[in-house]
Amino acid sequence: MAEFSAAESAFMARALRLAERGVYTAHPNPMVGCVLVRDGEIVGEGWHEAAGEAHAEINALQAAGAKARGATAYLTLEPCSHEGRTPPCAPALIDAGIGEAVIAMEDPFPAVRGNGRAALEAAGIAVRSGLMQEAAKVLNAGFLSRVQRGRPFVRVKVASSLDGAIAMKSGESQWITGPEARADVQRLRARSGAILTGIGTVLADDPALNVRHEDLDTRGRQPIRAVLDSRLRMPLSAGMLGMPGTTVVYCTDDAGRQPLLDAGAHVVRVARAAGVLDLQQVLTDLADREVNDVLVEAGPAVSGQLLAQRLADELVIYQAPHIMGSETRPMFATPAWMRLADRQPLHIVDLRRVGSDIRITARMSD
Amino acid sequence: MAEFSAAESAFMARALRLAERGVYTAHPNPMVGCVLVRDGEIVGEGWHEAAGEAHAEINALQAAGAKARGATAYLTLEPCSHEGRTPPCAPALIDAGIGEAVIAMEDPFPAVRGNGRAALEAAGIAVRSGLMQEAAKVLNAGFLSRVQRGRPFVRVKVASSLDGAIAMKSGESQWITGPEARADVQRLRARSGAILTGIGTVLADDPALNVRHEDLDTRGRQPIRAVLDSRLRMPLSAGMLGMPGTTVVYCTDDAGRQPLLDAGAHVVRVARAAGVLDLQQVLTDLADREVNDVLVEAGPAVSGQLLAQRLADELVIYQAPHIMGSETRPMFATPAWMRLADRQPLHIVDLRRVGSDIRITARMSD
Repeated sequence: MAEFSAAESAFMARALRLAERGVYTAHPNPMVGCVLVRDGEIVGEGWHEAAGEAHAEINALQAAGAKARGATAYLTLEPCSHEGRTPPCAPALIDAGIGEAVIAMEDPFPAVRGNGRAALEAAGIAVRSGLMQEAAKVLNAGFLSRVQRGRPFVRVKVASSLDGAIAMKSGESQWITGPEARADVQRLRARSGAILTGIGTVLADDPALNVRHEDLDTRGRQPIRAVLDSRLRMPLSAGMLGMPGTTVVYCTDDAGRQPLLDAGAHVVRVARAAGVLDLQQVLTDLADREVNDVLVEAGPAVSGQLLAQRLADELVIYQAPHIMGSETRPMFATPAWMRLADRQPLHIVDLRRVGSDIRITARMSD
Repeated sequence: MAEFSAAESAFMARALRLAERGVYTAHPNPMVGCVLVRDGEIVGEGWHEAAGEAHAEINALQAAGAKARGATAYLTLEPCSHEGRTPPCAPALIDAGIGEAVIAMEDPFPAVRGNGRAALEAAGIAVRSGLMQEAAKVLNAGFLSRVQRGRPFVRVKVASSLDGAIAMKSGESQWITGPEARADVQRLRARSGAILTGIGTVLADDPALNVRHEDLDTRGRQPIRAVLDSRLRMPLSAGMLGMPGTTVVYCTDDAGRQPLLDAGAHVVRVARAAGVLDLQQVLTDLADREVNDVLVEAGPAVSGQLLAQRLADELVIYQAPHIMGSETRPMFATPAWMRLADRQPLHIVDLRRVGSDIRITARMSD
């Protein structure tokens, strides 16, 4: 790996922060940031705001104007070399006469993968890569998952008490966490391509699963609402059917699909696996719909199945400051986990207080 | 309340930090710190290290020597005015000629309560109080509880998974948390006058419940081991009976007590309340044994009873980074809590990572 100076790390960190500005809008594209530096000074910067609009590099070149000549470009992702919805970036960087490029990570998208770098090098531009690669990968975990694994990054959100209860046994559960945590969930929704839930949650809570926080500008985009509903019990009165955006209902028997189709929903039939909907097939379908990140807001059965089938990538657990005790429902129903060895190890990537609640972000360990 | 300068707050904060040095040794006395300041400079400081040894004020006066004359004394607790195991401090401060005293909180101990302050004022020394009073009360929460409520401060420790499980349904549970969390529990033990557990835990795990971390100097003191054992099922082979220190077994029927007495244990008969041992009576007995702080390291039944009877003051929850699922045992068995309104609200006073685990410290809210 090439050596990088502290100043270079700072420029790349800046490019990553710029990239993150596209968190609610770049979908389904990756978030990308670009910083152009000449003589140790930033002469232009940009990020990719929305699909169909200019890429980060183009915005940075425009900001730099003639100062781009001889500059070093700090790029959070390999520049594209293919004609997509917009003209490719590698030729634009070459035409602008940049002297050097530092790239955080290779673009895994098949039409790019190494070609962008090769195009720069063929034009005599020195390219070094790998600076802050891990952070760049975390930033675009969803995009990478879709391109490399053919399924979205699966983030499971749970709201519980400090002792891990999500509801009383009776089902009583309203407002376990506080307003700050609920606002935080809105941010998780806004960065997701789809929200996944089960028919049980729909029947019990009739959730809208939409982005409704006015401070979150998704340019009007609403995440797809994906409902696991083997036997198509989805009522036509479900609130989400009347909301802007797309509702996809996954079932194993679609004989009764017509009324839902008439109500504007998509109905997708998937195989049955281990007595329930084939979740892998559901995730593949969502990837085909260009979903990078799925947020799961479901009950213990669905969340537990995703966990037990090792399809969950990240857990976001909000714990409210109270003890609900033993006559309660657990976060994850895992009927097959009978021994301690069955447990799912995690590593905690973030821990903080959100209002009077705690938020724990954890990813799967092997 | 008197007004205090930032410098005075810093001196009192220093006195509180000094007081805390007695955390493992001052027992059963309160932790106390004293800082003597003349012309803005600290001329002497001290803390109370162990019962029967010099109080904080005496140590500070000794360090200051002649410089104590005209100094302001910052005291985390009202100085004693009664002859205890050592001569009283208020007269010593007067004899040394201090000019002023700033006291964080009044000593609630009946033989002192206001008399220390009165003695200083009678000698012409100006006394102001209330500076950092809350922190002083938190520091000596155990001592205050024993003196004011006639029972110790009850701290319940739980080790669970992120989803609140303490064991599999089978009971399988070893090593849920990591070595750093277990070392942290040693610190909780070392600051406690007693460790409380149930006979179920004794029979299942045969815990030693002792302080065994070599870095924790309790001057050889071991917390009392208190076992709730209604029908005296405690086996004579229990490891704790062979350990240095005192084991107290609480029962409702002491007919079979002789073998345990012969093994060196104390056996205390208490009333039966709501089908189980009268926990209030157990706590009163522990207070009579000069226990300020009780650490509860028990199973869901005992911890749940303390919680349901509102006898727990603080929870220290260690959560290990894994999900154990639904076929597990909960932290607290609360069979009577059937509605959400039954839950126990808390406020979180501390949140941090301990090794790869999380530690949540929470106190009861009303």
